[in-house]
Amino acid sequence: MRATAMYGAGDVRIEDVPDARLAEPTDALVRVTHAAICGSDLWPYKSMEPSETGRRMGREFVGVVEDVGPEVRTVKPGDLVVAPFLWSDGTCVFCREGLHTSCLHGGRYGQDGVDGGQGEAVRVPQADGTLVVLPDGEDDALMPSLLTLTDVMGTGHHVAISAKVAPGKTVAVVGDGAVGLCGVIAAKRLGAGRIILLGRHRDRIAIAEKFGATDIVSERGEQGVERVRELTNGFGAHSVLECVGLGQAMVTALSIVRPGGAVGRVGVPQEASIPNAAQTFFDNVTIAGGSAPVRAYIEELLPDVLDGRIEPGWVIDRVVELDGVPDGYRAMNDREALKVMVKL
Amino acid sequence: MRATAMYGAGDVRIEDVPDARLAEPTDALVRVTHAAICGSDLWPYKSMEPSETGRRMGREFVGVVEDVGPEVRTVKPGDLVVAPFLWSDGTCVFCREGLHTSCLHGGRYGQDGVDGGQGEAVRVPQADGTLVVLPDGEDDALMPSLLTLTDVMGTGHHVAISAKVAPGKTVAVVGDGAVGLCGVIAAKRLGAGRIILLGRHRDRIAIAEKFGATDIVSERGEQGVERVRELTNGFGAHSVLECVGLGQAMVTALSIVRPGGAVGRVGVPQEASIPNAAQTFFDNVTIAGGSAPVRAYIEELLPDVLDGRIEPGWVIDRVVELDGVPDGYRAMNDREALKVMVKL
Repeated sequence: MRATAMYGAGDVRIEDVPDARLAEPTDALVRVTHAAICGSDLWPYKSMEPSETGRRMGREFVGVVEDVGPEVRTVKPGDLVVAPFLWSDGTCVFCREGLHTSCLHGGRYGQDGVDGGQGEAVRVPQADGTLVVLPDGEDDALMPSLLTLTDVMGTGHHVAISAKVAPGKTVAVVGDGAVGLCGVIAAKRLGAGRIILLGRHRDRIAIAEKFGATDIVSERGEQGVERVRELTNGFGAHSVLECVGLGQAMVTALSIVRPGGAVGRVGVPQEASIPNAAQTFFDNVTIAGGSAPVRAYIEELLPDVLDGRIEPGWVIDRVVELDGVPDGYRAMNDREALKVMVKL
Repeated sequence: MRATAMYGAGDVRIEDVPDARLAEPTDALVRVTHAAICGSDLWPYKSMEPSETGRRMGREFVGVVEDVGPEVRTVKPGDLVVAPFLWSDGTCVFCREGLHTSCLHGGRYGQDGVDGGQGEAVRVPQADGTLVVLPDGEDDALMPSLLTLTDVMGTGHHVAISAKVAPGKTVAVVGDGAVGLCGVIAAKRLGAGRIILLGRHRDRIAIAEKFGATDIVSERGEQGVERVRELTNGFGAHSVLECVGLGQAMVTALSIVRPGGAVGRVGVPQEASIPNAAQTFFDNVTIAGGSAPVRAYIEELLPDVLDGRIEPGWVIDRVVELDGVPDGYRAMNDREALKVMVKL
């Protein structure tokens, strides 16, 4: 079959790989119909050391179950399923607490003999714990929104929950990427009174406003911080959603949070430490979040997607075929595309 | 009147200062009966640059109201009052949220013309918002416990709340100082199932066990971390109370917290940043807490002290008169005393 692999910075290839096949009795074999390119894979795209063997890519996908192992109970051949970006058993102590990212028997796609999502098919371990069956006959127009349940919409929800968004609160979102924009959706859905987006790209701002952003701050650095303070009586926002991961984004997030407020973080941290230890201490700022257990949120978010109450699919602004994946990485890295969907 | 001032590292003096007196209509003049030496003042005791003018010390005290300004409504001459370690108006937006440490009109003792607590009398600004009246005729034996409501017991409660202690949870306390020991009381009071104290001093361990610690870990560094993991099925503690402030204590705290757990911090941070940004991210660890709004907790904790359900006064193991304060700092700094009460 054909699948995507990365061989180094800027070097993404579509190549022939061994066909995906069942290995464990708890596996499902899923024929991928739609996949996405993940913003966090732009980090290796910028910096990966050249590799002889390459690294299989992709962890956000929707597809049709083709076969299942003998112990699989909840999905069957023919089911249309959505796959969260990590696989998990759904039964361990952490999964039962909703923290599927720490599953004792879970793991990542694209390593240890598990396929990546940007390919024709995937062996999905722990299928019962991982896959969620979608209703039959879903409209193709809904597919971009359904696909975001594999990562960015669940991650936007996680960062909002982590930042303690609640009715009437003032929320600031740092980052206008796909996750930041889904954070706007999540904040609005949770009842935020005011949603300030920090971002500079006109097309992304337009999506943010469609999603519910009430104020846009396009200034950067200290000027951006000042502007948020002006908008919040000088106090800062109750809830700040850090959706980037760069050190400067965290500095900004911690500079615009109100005393007693919370910063949620879902951008994979590119620094070894969290700054402003003393200021956050004297202001009693909570720092929470991390890798989003999106599996825990699918049941809650899915009805809103199916009913059209939320439309996170708007963050997908380019569709490619499998052969177009390498150029999709380039386009996202060049900020020519916000988020790329792969249609197989 | 006589009061305490620090002139540099290791240089604490009792000296004659102008008598405390009312200045604002919202002030109360309090004759101090009992004060305490605060562990966080051991930081300047170790490192303060020599000063010509000195710095007035002390912010934990109980006393009798001697006079009040014309706008004071809730306390009157003769009242026995407990004073939290910061003064606050009780009416601003932050005080109404229980975050008195961020009061818009609050401040610290010992600066800007406000007396320190380790002296014969104190002008207390914002008396209505700050002072809590104690019942008449309190037993002298209760005084150490009542005095802890000015700081260490409220701080122990704050760190437990920040670390999300709840019934049945496993709690680890980093630091066996007065705050750590009060953290043990708070964890037990909030229903923790298991309380692991990380500490090495035999007398402090005895107090921790009296307060409800179920396990003691005396190993340091990586060995201590391993020991806590052994005690917690390899997962770590749900709630970790960081009660020291040194970088190494925070490293330990972040190394023994369970995925999805929370680290509360109340030790004044001695480092500019919080370490382990990536590990805490992938483990979804919450970091919360800070300067404790002890004023918010007095009403909740006071009945338990009055009824003897909690006895935080056990952390006070030395009593001195005002002239003994300099030696009290020395004794606490040398770890000869855990916490010193000043009886005037």
